[in-house]
Amino acid sequence: MRTLVDGQDVDLELEPIVERIAIDLPPPSMDDVRADDERLLHALERARPGACERVAVDAARALSPLLRDGDGELDAFVRRGELIAAGPPGRAALGLAVDLGTTNISARLASLESGETLASAGVENPQTRYGGDLISYAAHVRHAEDGAEELQALAVEALGALVAELCVHAGASAEQILDAVVVGNTMMQHLLLGLPVEPLATAPFVPALRSASELKARDLGLDLAPAARVYLPPNIAAFVGGDHVSMLLATGCARDARLTLAMDIGTNTEISLLDGDSITSVSCPSGPAFEGAHIECGMRAAVGAIERVRLVGNDVRVETIEDAPAAGICGSGVLDTVAQLYLAGVVDERGRIREGHPRVRSRGKRREFVLVHASDAAGSELVFTQEDVRAVQLAKAAIRSATDLLLEATGHVEGELEQVIVAGAFGNYIDVTSAQAIGLLPPLPFRRFAQVGNAAGDGARLALLSQRQRDAAETIADRCRYVELAGHPSFQSTYLGRIGFAPLR
Amino acid sequence: MRTLVDGQDVDLELEPIVERIAIDLPPPSMDDVRADDERLLHALERARPGACERVAVDAARALSPLLRDGDGELDAFVRRGELIAAGPPGRAALGLAVDLGTTNISARLASLESGETLASAGVENPQTRYGGDLISYAAHVRHAEDGAEELQALAVEALGALVAELCVHAGASAEQILDAVVVGNTMMQHLLLGLPVEPLATAPFVPALRSASELKARDLGLDLAPAARVYLPPNIAAFVGGDHVSMLLATGCARDARLTLAMDIGTNTEISLLDGDSITSVSCPSGPAFEGAHIECGMRAAVGAIERVRLVGNDVRVETIEDAPAAGICGSGVLDTVAQLYLAGVVDERGRIREGHPRVRSRGKRREFVLVHASDAAGSELVFTQEDVRAVQLAKAAIRSATDLLLEATGHVEGELEQVIVAGAFGNYIDVTSAQAIGLLPPLPFRRFAQVGNAAGDGARLALLSQRQRDAAETIADRCRYVELAGHPSFQSTYLGRIGFAPLR
Repeated sequence: MRTLVDGQDVDLELEPIVERIAIDLPPPSMDDVRADDERLLHALERARPGACERVAVDAARALSPLLRDGDGELDAFVRRGELIAAGPPGRAALGLAVDLGTTNISARLASLESGETLASAGVENPQTRYGGDLISYAAHVRHAEDGAEELQALAVEALGALVAELCVHAGASAEQILDAVVVGNTMMQHLLLGLPVEPLATAPFVPALRSASELKARDLGLDLAPAARVYLPPNIAAFVGGDHVSMLLATGCARDARLTLAMDIGTNTEISLLDGDSITSVSCPSGPAFEGAHIECGMRAAVGAIERVRLVGNDVRVETIEDAPAAGICGSGVLDTVAQLYLAGVVDERGRIREGHPRVRSRGKRREFVLVHASDAAGSELVFTQEDVRAVQLAKAAIRSATDLLLEATGHVEGELEQVIVAGAFGNYIDVTSAQAIGLLPPLPFRRFAQVGNAAGDGARLALLSQRQRDAAETIADRCRYVELAGHPSFQSTYLGRIGFAPLR
Repeated sequence: MRTLVDGQDVDLELEPIVERIAIDLPPPSMDDVRADDERLLHALERARPGACERVAVDAARALSPLLRDGDGELDAFVRRGELIAAGPPGRAALGLAVDLGTTNISARLASLESGETLASAGVENPQTRYGGDLISYAAHVRHAEDGAEELQALAVEALGALVAELCVHAGASAEQILDAVVVGNTMMQHLLLGLPVEPLATAPFVPALRSASELKARDLGLDLAPAARVYLPPNIAAFVGGDHVSMLLATGCARDARLTLAMDIGTNTEISLLDGDSITSVSCPSGPAFEGAHIECGMRAAVGAIERVRLVGNDVRVETIEDAPAAGICGSGVLDTVAQLYLAGVVDERGRIREGHPRVRSRGKRREFVLVHASDAAGSELVFTQEDVRAVQLAKAAIRSATDLLLEATGHVEGELEQVIVAGAFGNYIDVTSAQAIGLLPPLPFRRFAQVGNAAGDGARLALLSQRQRDAAETIADRCRYVELAGHPSFQSTYLGRIGFAPLR
């Protein structure tokens, strides 16, 4: 069966997690004093022999009134031989797919049977109040008593609020949500599961759990159907998590014969090389520059953020999100700015901002480029500083040297790459030419690049809708070999070699 | 393997619920950044191929420090292919067996590996503050908001206190308790599981769950090992619960070729007839007379309670628990009193107390027998009233007519019974001759009777120590056919026919 996943025609063999079985069950009487579960199982056996052999205790708690009121016509929902819910005929069976990102959480409500998405919603991850990156979260856990519980509670609260919002949009009730999938990086998944996160952030950087997890939604404090479960895909390593696996799943690259590089660029960047059956993964800390953070005039990709920059003569042309007055520079704008300054010779091969351009000015030792004059900006003028260029250099050097070492470790060279998948919010919006100009991405023909947006979220939805997709995610993780770059002998030299910009051809 | 269960040589094939596997696991390093679960599973696979395929999330939460400190020598505990706990070598793996009675809770702590009982403890069920019988509990649930949660919380609290006490006795920690079994009547099990109890107490008297349940101890609010589970045996009907199944399991009568009657006498009495492969069960409300309740000078079986009564001429000889001054009459004393009064002609065949005996007196319409004069009693004099005789008549009529109808329903007559098992605290202490004299038990040769004490608790312990015993409990429940007496056409006439006492032969 083929189905539409967010407008894309995806070959998804729906093998729904729950099966709907219509039954007709007269209420108990003095002539039929069999227990609720006994009568239910008997009716299910008649309707679909062999489909169900037990009733979940959590479901049984809620069934009693249902089996006594009404005319006895019911739809039962069975999951792996266990009745997990029942309701009046025709009620939709819903599922929740969540991408639990370090800074943003997005969630979708879907029909478990048709696969249709009924509502989507997103929210800033409230955990960001403790820093917004993995190292800050780990520090909070280390220093604050109950820090881990606090972070877990924040995530759970945010998920609860999203569920409520999605249910309002879809005209549904949280009790109809029978299954959920949450994908996140290893730390997000560990925090949600209440697993220790300090070992993730301390050498030798080891996760508590690599395997996929499945537990009761209630065990996580999530108020869905009483017997609902939450599935989290496997992690590959401390810094290559279930969201990366989910991305590999959604893009289908793990089933693709082409030699593929698949990368998630963010504060931490995860890169996998897929070569036939073997998958090799690396990760590197790449700083928040490409998320517009720790940049003088940086901002998140919101209304008014500069996302495109072109230098035309001495003029600077910028495009902002929703064409609003420029309020700051988001990741793709940061990338464009550095690329344009370099291509125009304003920044040299070593990354120094040169004097001479009318928009370059020096304030003491600090040199900066005026991107938007105060008169054209939403607030004060927007500048790009020497420090900002350095931050981008460090980020791109980390990502590109990780790519180099990954290729080296697998015996390949850049030119052989047949496909480069760039995932994530940043990856979806960047100008590949700019990324190539500064050396973030390898200089390959443009057609070999695929920018896939929030593929991790798409993967969560696939896993929600099909047991086969969960199995596939686990197979992907099993095939992954993780290479630790922190201990790699040539990491330092490769990294230093990638700090500068390549000579212009 | 044969083992001692409370001094009795029982043929228990130990098939422990958990398996101990010793492993040697070096801590993680930059050369070995595999996740904790991955390294553990690898070490387990080397030590015992095929024994373990995943690590429980609940266990993983606690493992992190253990895998980093120490010399790497560990004992892992595996249950059905899942690692549920690990600890330093040699630490005992413990289990908890609980008999959750309507009025009393008893618990034992045992080694899951050797089967040895390490500590026992008992406490009055704090739920008794709401009445001490099933109907009162159901009424509390119906009338009080959160009544069910309140009763559940009381049981869980009591279990927690018992666990603490047992651990002190055994010098152990609750974290070592990896598995638990709780047996109780259907309502006790339903209350503990948070299942609806109103349908149990309202016609047509139908349980929510017949099947055995197994859930996380934590889901019940019990603080044992993080991944510990609690098993509750199946129920047969609203008034024949897991404790009856547990009794049938412990006494071995379900594997016995003899035609056997097995009864639990209490406020509610459960009786099963075992005939080859078929088991037929009935139940009847029998009032609290045999627990010493609702009897003028009745009391529970505690120090000073009269447990034996003999009329010798005009004299009355009593035996009390621990030979303390008589403070009241407990169940076996109540039974003896009525039997002795009847045999001495003080009570006639219709149950009336006759005048003439020097200890019989009338106060207005109320006639009573002075059992212990104030001078010989702990407090005031102890009397046995006409009302008390009536209460016993009603109780014994209910039990005996249930027996009659059970025999009738299975096509048997009393004389064919080869074995009569009388279980429970009351059943263990009664004088069978007295019970036969008043017609509570059928007039069979004494050697056919077996008084087995707290067999339900013994069954809980068997189920704790062996998966086979759990399977056997489930098979027993599957073999049981429940016959509802409330709707039985001849119940009323049979009952009325059993109110009086049989003519003395």
